[in-house]
Amino acid sequence: MEDAELAVADVDGVFPEGFYATTNHPTDVRVRGAWARVEGIEMDVGIRITGDGAEACPMHRVRKGDAIVIGEAGVRVTVPELANAQGEAFRFMSSAASTERPKARLIATVADAMRAAHANGGKILFVGGPAIVHSGSAPVLERLVRDGWIDVLFAGNALAAHDIEASMFGTSLGIDLARGESIPHGHQHHLRAINRIRRAGSIAEAVHQGLVTRGVMHACITKPIPFVLAGSIRDDGPLPDVFTDAVQAADAMRELVLGVTVAIIVATTLHGVATGNMLPADVATFCVDSSADTVIKLVDRGTQQAVGIVTDCEYFLNELARVLS
Amino acid sequence: MEDAELAVADVDGVFPEGFYATTNHPTDVRVRGAWARVEGIEMDVGIRITGDGAEACPMHRVRKGDAIVIGEAGVRVTVPELANAQGEAFRFMSSAASTERPKARLIATVADAMRAAHANGGKILFVGGPAIVHSGSAPVLERLVRDGWIDVLFAGNALAAHDIEASMFGTSLGIDLARGESIPHGHQHHLRAINRIRRAGSIAEAVHQGLVTRGVMHACITKPIPFVLAGSIRDDGPLPDVFTDAVQAADAMRELVLGVTVAIIVATTLHGVATGNMLPADVATFCVDSSADTVIKLVDRGTQQAVGIVTDCEYFLNELARVLS
Amino acid sequence: MEDAELAVADVDGVFPEGFYATTNHPTDVRVRGAWARVEGIEMDVGIRITGDGAEACPMHRVRKGDAIVIGEAGVRVTVPELANAQGEAFRFMSSAASTERPKARLIATVADAMRAAHANGGKILFVGGPAIVHSGSAPVLERLVRDGWIDVLFAGNALAAHDIEASMFGTSLGIDLARGESIPHGHQHHLRAINRIRRAGSIAEAVHQGLVTRGVMHACITKPIPFVLAGSIRDDGPLPDVFTDAVQAADAMRELVLGVTVAIIVATTLHGVATGNMLPADVATFCVDSSADTVIKLVDRGTQQAVGIVTDCEYFLNELARVLS
Amino acid sequence: MEDAELAVADVDGVFPEGFYATTNHPTDVRVRGAWARVEGIEMDVGIRITGDGAEACPMHRVRKGDAIVIGEAGVRVTVPELANAQGEAFRFMSSAASTERPKARLIATVADAMRAAHANGGKILFVGGPAIVHSGSAPVLERLVRDGWIDVLFAGNALAAHDIEASMFGTSLGIDLARGESIPHGHQHHLRAINRIRRAGSIAEAVHQGLVTRGVMHACITKPIPFVLAGSIRDDGPLPDVFTDAVQAADAMRELVLGVTVAIIVATTLHGVATGNMLPADVATFCVDSSADTVIKLVDRGTQQAVGIVTDCEYFLNELARVLS
Repeated sequence: MEDAELAVADVDGVFPEGFYATTNHPTDVRVRGAWARVEGIEMDVGIRITGDGAEACPMHRVRKGDAIVIGEAGVRVTVPELANAQGEAFRFMSSAASTERPKARLIATVADAMRAAHANGGKILFVGGPAIVHSGSAPVLERLVRDGWIDVLFAGNALAAHDIEASMFGTSLGIDLARGESIPHGHQHHLRAINRIRRAGSIAEAVHQGLVTRGVMHACITKPIPFVLAGSIRDDGPLPDVFTDAVQAADAMRELVLGVTVAIIVATTLHGVATGNMLPADVATFCVDSSADTVIKLVDRGTQQAVGIVTDCEYFLNELARVLS
Repeated sequence: MEDAELAVADVDGVFPEGFYATTNHPTDVRVRGAWARVEGIEMDVGIRITGDGAEACPMHRVRKGDAIVIGEAGVRVTVPELANAQGEAFRFMSSAASTERPKARLIATVADAMRAAHANGGKILFVGGPAIVHSGSAPVLERLVRDGWIDVLFAGNALAAHDIEASMFGTSLGIDLARGESIPHGHQHHLRAINRIRRAGSIAEAVHQGLVTRGVMHACITKPIPFVLAGSIRDDGPLPDVFTDAVQAADAMRELVLGVTVAIIVATTLHGVATGNMLPADVATFCVDSSADTVIKLVDRGTQQAVGIVTDCEYFLNELARVLS
Repeated sequence: MEDAELAVADVDGVFPEGFYATTNHPTDVRVRGAWARVEGIEMDVGIRITGDGAEACPMHRVRKGDAIVIGEAGVRVTVPELANAQGEAFRFMSSAASTERPKARLIATVADAMRAAHANGGKILFVGGPAIVHSGSAPVLERLVRDGWIDVLFAGNALAAHDIEASMFGTSLGIDLARGESIPHGHQHHLRAINRIRRAGSIAEAVHQGLVTRGVMHACITKPIPFVLAGSIRDDGPLPDVFTDAVQAADAMRELVLGVTVAIIVATTLHGVATGNMLPADVATFCVDSSADTVIKLVDRGTQQAVGIVTDCEYFLNELARVLS
Repeated sequence: MEDAELAVADVDGVFPEGFYATTNHPTDVRVRGAWARVEGIEMDVGIRITGDGAEACPMHRVRKGDAIVIGEAGVRVTVPELANAQGEAFRFMSSAASTERPKARLIATVADAMRAAHANGGKILFVGGPAIVHSGSAPVLERLVRDGWIDVLFAGNALAAHDIEASMFGTSLGIDLARGESIPHGHQHHLRAINRIRRAGSIAEAVHQGLVTRGVMHACITKPIPFVLAGSIRDDGPLPDVFTDAVQAADAMRELVLGVTVAIIVATTLHGVATGNMLPADVATFCVDSSADTVIKLVDRGTQQAVGIVTDCEYFLNELARVLS
């Protein structure tokens, strides 16, 4: 068996032509007659040879002089056998993301995967969209964080802003969460909430000042668990904790996916696909959305291990919390 | 004020040209100088003058010699003020069928409307599709029937057949409802279930013989409450209780909507639109579907009083049962 | 190899217990030591032994005394190799019903399949919903019929009624098709159209009287091509040509699918699933809908040869007509 | 009438408590006894008093010492009468984003609005998602740019990257656009395309070097028209022209929306909602998507002037180009 062919990068942030583009499956590369496991594997990046092995390298991290793998020779990809607990959920959904299957059984499978992850020292990542707050389910997610079921949170400005809006005003997008009705001027509440956090300087500081006393972000700060809030062009404010630079946000997410063995993506296409792209293929990935299209899109983008659950985030979270407790 | 203009039907099943086509709002017609309330109002039918008044008349029921209202003179339509309990739900959804509102509050409104209906002597109609069984929620619907919350059931061959399949085999469309997995040869179970009921002669007879011991249809037979199973061209079998003739089925449904003041339509476009067409506009109508399109379609077809709840039938039924008990 | 086991039906319309339930693939059954091809194969029916062979038998057609195949011994199912032209379209969509693929290429494949069908003496079946008329595309479908591209039409009361409404009033559901705006009292137009056809006695008679001078149904009557209008409970009227009995409608459809080698299902779930259930698996089947859910539902129901095209019926028909001419 | 109340900002990037939050309608504020029009109005920002008037001020642009409007006194909002051409399209869709209306007529209305914009010196903004390229419609958009119909383009990394992929390799997401089939290793093409542009340093430089010879971005560079490519966390690469910082991207978009009187949003929720938020309410806004949910979301977020067209981008662009030429 021959060694992988290498080429030297001649510009920062640019691969040599013909660079090998990765999958998210475990990958080995043959260098100087020996196989080295590629560290930090994720989809759609390159492979950089390091002093004693090889590592996945996003395009923007290439530095002039790096040795980059070219072509497919000397690269070996392992498509993993699915573990049993996980495999059951996979088979269940094998044909398609159907709205016509019993969901309670599938949600129990998510709970099983979470328990197995913690029993084996794996981390559980939760990726969520603002519909969690709009639907009144933030208290359930808050409880999951406080009870230790979630180790890392990825979200955008909107989930955090509306969660804090709910904490400060009892509304989300101006809808009173207790009565389900619009509040006069309520559509400005999230702007006022963001503005107060900007004045405090950070969510953590706002918590310490007593401006935020409950909610998902309060639980993240006080538990504490790490989180990444990734910015987007549609953000109001944004909150001071938001990474406004997309490349920095993605790099921060990359740090935190290390050690994750279960990922639960709820009601977000943007953050879900972004996360899916950086997860190794052996992470048990569950994608929950009220639209089958979101699940199909995630799988079409290469996260083929994703198990789709087409349902409300409200039902999913309530049922998951019920099963876990 | 002038009397309504009348014309005499000259063919069975055919209106005179220029016939007045109804809305589903309360309607009066002026005959011989006095206003008569149109009995049995429903959408998209004509008005027939009777010995002592007037009645809504579907096209196929016209008989040669009937006096039919022509044009709009002498017809008065009353758009009702919404009652308070009902109005709240209406305002809640006023903008659109949104997936981003808290559902638990809205489901509580359905429960309130059901309690108010029974307090005032009104009947509650439930119209359901087979996803109720596929999603494993039939036991919840069964309980609602047994507990007296449902007075009339409309459905198709599929709901009844899969409910009986679940009762006989524990599966729905061949998926084991307890484990959420396909059973070998399970896709034939509903055919075998239908076949056994055909041998017995009717669902009631099958219940009496002990062939069916639980489920929604068992509850309907034993409670008892009346039901209409309306046939369609995609039906397997069908069950012997199914009205295979669509006009007879609709007429049977027309008999049973009298006295209904709350209608709950879950996971069915076909039966939902058909029912919506024959409900007076002052019936509080709730349409539950995982797709906003179904709700929009019902409203576009003229059932403008329908309140849409975009969610899983599984979540809706569980939450409704929880609130009611 | 042993013969198939047989049992004698003891009741009209009821199979013996344990009856073999068919797939839609070519099927042979071994009787008296020889293999006989099952005639008229369709999904989810039984197999009846005839004087010189075997035939598919829907449940309601069983007669007391019929010999019905029991169990799986002596039954052989052939999953056909896909022909080349058809196979390309199949591979194209292999992963899922995606909204993100170029459609023009796929529509060209439909045209190729239609040309191949006619070159080989096969018939082309078109199954359509009323959105074809609402979207202003009825003239395109009319042209396809007149140009000889369609050999059989399946639809419901709504497609025919709104097509005739468009012919008589220039509207569909009361929307002026030229200007795209609502017409005062326009929502009654389809009722008036249906009423006139009922007076005439049939669509053919209305065409002969000059009441209908254009449109899809006019083309079907004058070309002529056979059609089945299958009734449902949501029908207004209905038109006198409509089979109000679902079992009779399905039997009429069964007559006309003989010889069909290409089926095109556009904008209808009900008629699409019903038709899919009675098509042999070697019929090239294309399902066009603006919702991926409809396609998924058709495939989930067993019509696994269906190629989904997630797009507007308006675009599909215009592009198909352009490619064919 | 009293003057507006003002408060002085005490921290950079933070409004005083009680700040007035804007709508996207024309707004005047009373200062020193005279009404001043708020310049650059957009939704969900504040109002800053300037030397000779007032201007809309996004939260992150506040500077310590700025005079910010507090409360609602002294603020006047004008909800504009809709102009005639625009009004027709608005009435057309008044009830809901329906999939059951003729689209060709509505697309003609978009063309009319575009012609009227250019006749009156207004600019036309196009906001597009990558499905335009995936569906094979990039050549149509390219032609609209070359023919002068589009004055500003907003998109993300994906539209530009797949457009350049199509220019270099003839594929989009690895699907051959001419044959509609996957190409071996084709899913890496967009990475290779991005990498080459990064080596060149910018899209403009790649065009000048002859690396990109056709496509939407080539047309933007050579026509030329200004564009903003806004980054997101799911981007591969990204292209060197992409604003990776969301706040900078939004500010660049704010510069270019000045003078825009028609906005056409096609197949993108993220960029569509972001753009909608910064458009004044008198900009004729058309939102084209295959999902009604996207349109509903845009309107729910406050862009109430948006006219929804639920259809394929492929059909929309082809029909629009046909009508315009």
